[in-house]
This record gives sequence, C-alpha cells and structure tokens, in this order.
Amino acid sequence: MAGVRAGIKRDRTREDVTVVASDLPATAAGVYTTNLVYAAPVAYDRCLTPGRGFRGIVINSGNANACTGTRGFDDARGMAAAAGRMLGAEANEVLVLSTGIIGEFLPMAIVTAGIELAAAKLGVDADAAVSAARGMMTTDTRPKLAGGTFSAAGNGYTLFGMAKGAAMIGPRLATMLGIVLVDAPLEPADAQRLLAEAAEETFNCVSVDGHMSTNDTVLLLANGAAGGPPLQGNGLAAFATSLHDVCGTLAREMADDGEGATHVMRIEVTGCGSRDAARQIARTIADSPLVKTAVHGADPNWGRIVSAAGYAGVPFDPAAVELRLNGTLLFRGGSPLPFDADAVSESIKTARETRIDLVIGSGPGKIVFYSSDLTADYVHLNADYHT
Amino acid sequence: MAGVRAGIKRDRTREDVTVVASDLPATAAGVYTTNLVYAAPVAYDRCLTPGRGFRGIVINSGNANACTGTRGFDDARGMAAAAGRMLGAEANEVLVLSTGIIGEFLPMAIVTAGIELAAAKLGVDADAAVSAARGMMTTDTRPKLAGGTFSAAGNGYTLFGMAKGAAMIGPRLATMLGIVLVDAPLEPADAQRLLAEAAEETFNCVSVDGHMSTNDTVLLLANGAAGGPPLQGNGLAAFATSLHDVCGTLAREMADDGEGATHVMRIEVTGCGSRDAARQIARTIADSPLVKTAVHGADPNWGRIVSAAGYAGVPFDPAAVELRLNGTLLFRGGSPLPFDADAVSESIKTARETRIDLVIGSGPGKIVFYSSDLTADYVHLNADYHT
Repeated sequence: MAGVRAGIKRDRTREDVTVVASDLPATAAGVYTTNLVYAAPVAYDRCLTPGRGFRGIVINSGNANACTGTRGFDDARGMAAAAGRMLGAEANEVLVLSTGIIGEFLPMAIVTAGIELAAAKLGVDADAAVSAARGMMTTDTRPKLAGGTFSAAGNGYTLFGMAKGAAMIGPRLATMLGIVLVDAPLEPADAQRLLAEAAEETFNCVSVDGHMSTNDTVLLLANGAAGGPPLQGNGLAAFATSLHDVCGTLAREMADDGEGATHVMRIEVTGCGSRDAARQIARTIADSPLVKTAVHGADPNWGRIVSAAGYAGVPFDPAAVELRLNGTLLFRGGSPLPFDADAVSESIKTARETRIDLVIGSGPGKIVFYSSDLTADYVHLNADYHT
Repeated sequence: MAGVRAGIKRDRTREDVTVVASDLPATAAGVYTTNLVYAAPVAYDRCLTPGRGFRGIVINSGNANACTGTRGFDDARGMAAAAGRMLGAEANEVLVLSTGIIGEFLPMAIVTAGIELAAAKLGVDADAAVSAARGMMTTDTRPKLAGGTFSAAGNGYTLFGMAKGAAMIGPRLATMLGIVLVDAPLEPADAQRLLAEAAEETFNCVSVDGHMSTNDTVLLLANGAAGGPPLQGNGLAAFATSLHDVCGTLAREMADDGEGATHVMRIEVTGCGSRDAARQIARTIADSPLVKTAVHGADPNWGRIVSAAGYAGVPFDPAAVELRLNGTLLFRGGSPLPFDADAVSESIKTARETRIDLVIGSGPGKIVFYSSDLTADYVHLNADYHT
C-alpha cells in the first residue's frame, strides 16, 4: 500500500490518494451507509461485494464524489480502472472509497496521476501503512491503525486495519471509511456476515455529531496469502474475535479524534429490554449537544443525561434509573443524591475519557457506546471547512 | 402580572419569579413535553388541564424542579398554594411552570418570598408584561412577547402571549415555556384542541439543539373578561387564527434567540408524501451540527443539507430533489449546478435569516421549520452554564 499527495486537497502537504494492492485475488465484503443520498463509490462497491477475485482498493480524500450524478459514477469506475491498469487487474477487481467535500466533481486528471504515483510506490512497511492511512484522512488529526493475529488449523494469520473519521460520525455506520485486510482464506458469504456483525458492534456504536454521511464504507479483504483452507468453525470464530478487536480499536479512535474533541465519552447503558433499546438511549445521550458541552466544561450537570435518555423513544420507568458519572452515583429512585460536585468535575477535567453509566431497569439489553464532546473548535472547524 | 428578583438565580439582577393573575375564573388548556423524564410542575399541570376555574399561573426560572421525586411534586404544589394564598384562590386553581437547572430541589423559602413579592406588584401595563416575561427567562437574551386581536359575534378580544426558550429546544415541543392569555370565553375542550393544533404548527416546528426538555409547557388561559358567550363556529376560527399568529411569532423568536445564534434558519420542505414526512426531513436538517455550522460560517456547503435529508428516515428519490439556498438553485436531477459561491456566501453573511428550500418530490406534504445556527458561543454558554 501507499498514500501520496496528488493535489486534490487544497493543502498540498497532505496525502490524498491511497492504493492498496493484494498479490493474490481476495475475497471482499463491504458494509455501507444507509443514507438515501449515497456517494458514487458506495454505489459502485455495493454492486461488487461480497465477492471473490479482488486485487485492490483505491481511495481518495478531499472530495466525496457524492451528489455528482452519472458523471460521478463514471468517475468512481474510472478510479478503479486507473488503479486496475497499474495492478494488472480489471476495473471490477478494484474497490473504490472517497471522502471529502460533497457536491463537486472529481478532478480526474489529478486523481489519475495520484493513483499512478501511489501504485509505483507500494510498500509493506510501517511507513507505507502510515502514508496509506494518511491518504484517507480529512479532518482527522492522526492516522488510525490497528492490527491483530489469530490461529486456525495450525496456520497463523494477521489482520491489518485502518480507518478515517472525525465528523459526520452519526447514526448507524459512523461517517467513516475503514479497511481491514487479512491473509486468511475466507468464503465471501462468511466474510460478509462477520464484517457486518463486527461493524454493528463497533462502528455502529460511535457518534461524533449524529450526521450520517453519504460515503460510509468498511471493506474487508481476505486474500489467503498465509495459506490453509477457507476458514470454518473455530477458525472463523477466532477470526471474528480478532476482527471485532481491530474494528473496536479503530471505532474508539474515531470518537477520541472527533473534531475538536477534548474528551471521549464512554456511555454504558444496561438493564434495557434489548440491545437495540440500549443503543438508542446511548446514542441519544451521545448526540445531545447539551451533554457534549457539559462534558467539555467538566460540568457534572447530570440532568442533561437523564433528560436525554427520556426522549430517546424507549419506554422506561424513571424511578428505576441509576446514573453514575465517572463512578459517582448521582441519581436513583427518581431523586438526586448529594455528591461532591467539585470532585466529579475534577475527575472529568483530568481524564481524557468520561464514563457515563446508566442503569435503566433490570432487563438483559446493554451496550457500550463511544462519542466525543462538543467544543468551540468543532464549530470553528466546520464553519470554515469548505471555504 | 409581575416578575420579580427572588434570588433563585445566582445573578441577583435578574427576575426569576413571575405571577400571572386572572380576576375572573379562566378556562385553561396545556400542552407538555413528551419526555418520559418530566418535571414536577409538568406532572402537576397535567393533572389539572384542560379545565375551568383557574385564577393564575406561578412561574420560576433558575431551577427546573425536575428529577426531584416526591419532594419536587410537593414543592410544585407548594408554589401553587403560595400563589393561591395571595390571589384568594385554592392551590388547584393555580398552574405552575419551572425552568432552569435539573436535579436540584427548589429553595422554597426564597421561592415563596418571591411569589408574595410578585403578587403584591401585579400590574397590567407594558412594564408589568416585560417583567413577567423576564421572570421566565434562563439564557434568553431578551423577553419574548406577542399580541393579537380578533372579533367574534360583535365582541372584540385581545390575546397576549409570552415565552422563553433558547436551548434544550428540540423534538416535538420546543424546550420552552409559553403562556397565551385571552379575554374571550372558551369551553375547556375547545381551548385544549385549538392550543394543541397551534402548538403543533408553531412550537413543534422549532429546534435549537434537538434536546427535548423535561419542562416544556404551553398554557392557554381564557377568562372571558371581554364578554360574550363561549366562542363557537366562526368565532372559534377567528380565535384559532389569532392564536396561531401569536404562537408562531413566539416560536420564531425562540429560534432567532437560540443560544449563541448568529442566524435563524428558515427551512421549507415541500413535495413530501405528508406533513409529518416534511417535518421529519426539516427537523433532521435543522438539528445537523454540520448544517448549523455551515450557516454560521456563511459557507454554501449544500451537500450537508442534502445528506441530512437522506438520513431523515423518509423515503425519497434523490434524483427528484431540488435545493435552493437563499433562493439560488444548487442541486437538481441528482447533480450539482454551477453557482456563484461567493454571492451565496455573501447573502448568508449579510442577513439574519438563512433560507433553505428543499423540494423532495411532487407530494402535498410541506412544512416551514425554524432553527438557529451553531456557534462557539453556544458551546461556551453550555460548557459553563452549571458551574
């Protein structure tokens, strides 16, 4: 893989095109935004995955190729074709990811030159991985990488993951791009099922601003380079665990690197009727600007948390609710409990992670959800991003 | 009516208790938050409305009396009883509104002294109205007042409305308190129906931050002081029109005075299958932090608007969508149109109101929705409100 500076971004010092290549034809799976308004590369990849025989992924940042109609679709396929020419592959053997501004056509001459440059620089070391991860960044402050290993039937396998995402991180899939590569052999149907499960438990439990993107995509490529027969049974289970860990690390990293964030919020909701109910409550808390600003201000203004739970659309009895903020019990039996506000404020101020633990009742449904706080820097970044 | 400085708010220069009195027993109607976690005064008023025989409303700001359990309910009724003693009325003839911090018990000695002070200062002039409106303010920068007149069966009637609300303005009822007084005679069932209809078309079409409050309440008092028989037929229709105007003025004022706002966004969505569908799309656009910050930055980054519509949960065909920003057509037939970005940016920069007009298809459902932009001042206000 390699990431290069093609010149799509206004800031010419930043990478904006990445190519990932597989020497062997790989099984591919994908999960995508559920936004009705989805970008051309999402339309393209959706046609192709899950499937076999993939040789690479081509990525650009700085332009989302979204809301660009038929010309946008031609451009997405054009990116795949350009990468395919360099990799000795057909266009339909290359997947495409784009992220950046919505509603502008891709500068295809610049993009194509970048693809050729990246394909000529492919590497397998840490520098190559970091440049590739940087090539998918928009407002991220740092590349997001994760790795893992597992064994199956006597073979050792390695996973590599990278992701971007710092805003437009919202309902369902976080607004993000993610790639996981593994050298294990996988059947397409297994790859698709396990990727969907892992995304549901990780990337779908992250929110920065609640705005769902047009471009959300997570791709899995499994090329079997480490040998062995297609994974099954315990081998699949070992892979699933490792995949979950890699995706979970990347997801938490995205919340931690949320635009302008000074805190990552870990919201654990338990005692619900179902996991979906717990997720709905956690997401409503995570997306409340009032909760986000209270955390930013190290303000133990816990009524904002309880009231956000109350409008999540999930029925519950407020008298059964318990709320802890960084471990301190604040609300139980429908009434406030006396607490040391200065101490709780200090605990928020001095830690990057703020823990919100909410018991809703005695049901089995629970979830851990990550989000970021809301700061003036988020506003500055997003009021000025386009112009 | 009168508003006074009782000392509930830390800032002793600001009014925090208001009493509204009716010489004649009035019909009352109320609409309330749909939050499962609702405040004690909401529980109290819900028990009493709609009904007859009301003599007044007592209001405090600086403390929401929410998440305060049985003691909170006793305190809400205690406020009504204290006002009733001053007005020669029973507790169950007085309605109660509270707004402010959640999760703290009311300082009842201070509140009661404030009620007695306000009841001794009741007036009918503009100063009295402004002090009363100020007594319900939290982070509002200005009191919100509206008035209207109408005739029915030869009698002339007058409406007076006041409201507060600058944040926790969210789904369903805006997070707000509102009161409308009218000197017409009304049956309780008519009052309730027309208030609910007016709120649905006005206060339910406003959003600042999407956080639904525990305390949202709009009350209507109709005491018949201007004479005539209970309104019916054309008289009710004339009242409904005037009530809608008063509520609409107050609702737009709340969006305009949204915390830290530099713009009010007027979002008109047309061509939907139903009014509810149009509202859902408008609200999703209104609540997107990315749309709000783009407007704040005078940035015609219209992809954020289209993509917000796309995740509203309402099915539509993106190829049928048309988007105008301050009158300039930006997106049609699934593709971007060339436009003068500097001119559109300038039009946002130089006007308080930003107009977003979105055509979804050819259906009959449409709505006008108001919201505010998101600024660093919003973050500062809410990171520091409690402490």
